[in-house]
Amino acid sequence: MEQEFASRLLEEAVTEFSRLPGVGRKTALRLALHLLRQDEGVAVGLGNALINLRRGVRYCRECHNISETEMCPICADQTRDSEVICVVENVKDVMSFENTRQFNGKYHVLGGLISPIDGVGPEKLEISSLVKRVADGGVKEVILALSATMEGDTTNFYIYRQLAPYDVAVTQLSRGVSVGNEIEYTDEVTLGRSLINRTLFADQFK
Amino acid sequence: MEQEFASRLLEEAVTEFSRLPGVGRKTALRLALHLLRQDEGVAVGLGNALINLRRGVRYCRECHNISETEMCPICADQTRDSEVICVVENVKDVMSFENTRQFNGKYHVLGGLISPIDGVGPEKLEISSLVKRVADGGVKEVILALSATMEGDTTNFYIYRQLAPYDVAVTQLSRGVSVGNEIEYTDEVTLGRSLINRTLFADQFK
Repeated sequence: MEQEFASRLLEEAVTEFSRLPGVGRKTALRLALHLLRQDEGVAVGLGNALINLRRGVRYCRECHNISETEMCPICADQTRDSEVICVVENVKDVMSFENTRQFNGKYHVLGGLISPIDGVGPEKLEISSLVKRVADGGVKEVILALSATMEGDTTNFYIYRQLAPYDVAVTQLSRGVSVGNEIEYTDEVTLGRSLINRTLFADQFK
Repeated sequence: MEQEFASRLLEEAVTEFSRLPGVGRKTALRLALHLLRQDEGVAVGLGNALINLRRGVRYCRECHNISETEMCPICADQTRDSEVICVVENVKDVMSFENTRQFNGKYHVLGGLISPIDGVGPEKLEISSLVKRVADGGVKEVILALSATMEGDTTNFYIYRQLAPYDVAVTQLSRGVSVGNEIEYTDEVTLGRSLINRTLFADQFK
């Protein structure tokens, strides 16, 4: 049911808001009316931030992570191990791994996963630039840190094949029961993997 | 846990997004990254729509509904009954009542409800302008169409008192079991009211 808007400006704001993922027209209307009740600075601040983000954002020429500079702070950091490259799907994943504080190597952001259904082939992703980084030498390990989904597996395999000619170890994240998850609600494939890849109990205390 | 952003522009977009109601930093990041993946037009379109909305929007001088013109289309519509004014909390409620297609009078948008806890007194709402509309004559009925909440009741009563000196019928929406709701889950106050205000079964077929 389309609502009649008393104002074209409101209509436009609602239409634009509802292009966002997970935002329907009802939510969009609520957000637009919220902005109307706030000081002008809130709407103008959000509006300008979005325009500036899209127009001004740059990507690291090395790892394709979002960056203010030509080379991102991680790639530019001499104290980080450039022999290990962690391959991730997107910018958010870089943040997630950085938040673990368990990784001191470099990253490579693919910008998506291979998905024939969505028309995303390998050529739309930063895969050839990854191969080039490896071909240029100095990389000993490529960690495939993609989602454990069909698309992730496909992309993993494609990259694995592309890197086969090079002397580089290709590893992937361990699969297993997620921390906090109950066995009862863990799927059988994961359970099987977690059994095969079981680790010494005492290792966690090292 | 604050995330480290590789880009100040991204950080700003996330901060501004998360000022919206119901949008946390995690959702804000998801939305910002989504915009980065889209054509520039999507982010710029949304940004400009919000700025234009907040800067360009006008309100009807008569009913305070959102409007493109000095007087909104509803107030300007000569075929609508100007003897009946439906008092609503906000712009969205006007749309809701218009969508029912059951009302052919005029509206009056208060811009909120009296709420001492939130520091909203009657002077912050469009109540005096409502009283003036009634005082100017030609209004036979004022329908109080506010939420059935503490704030709604308070506001209803305040307006009722303000309009007492004038020869105008002050009515309110009927209370009762919501269409589609089960008796089991309807509160006792509503059940009591719906019993007292029961209507002839045959009336619905008229």
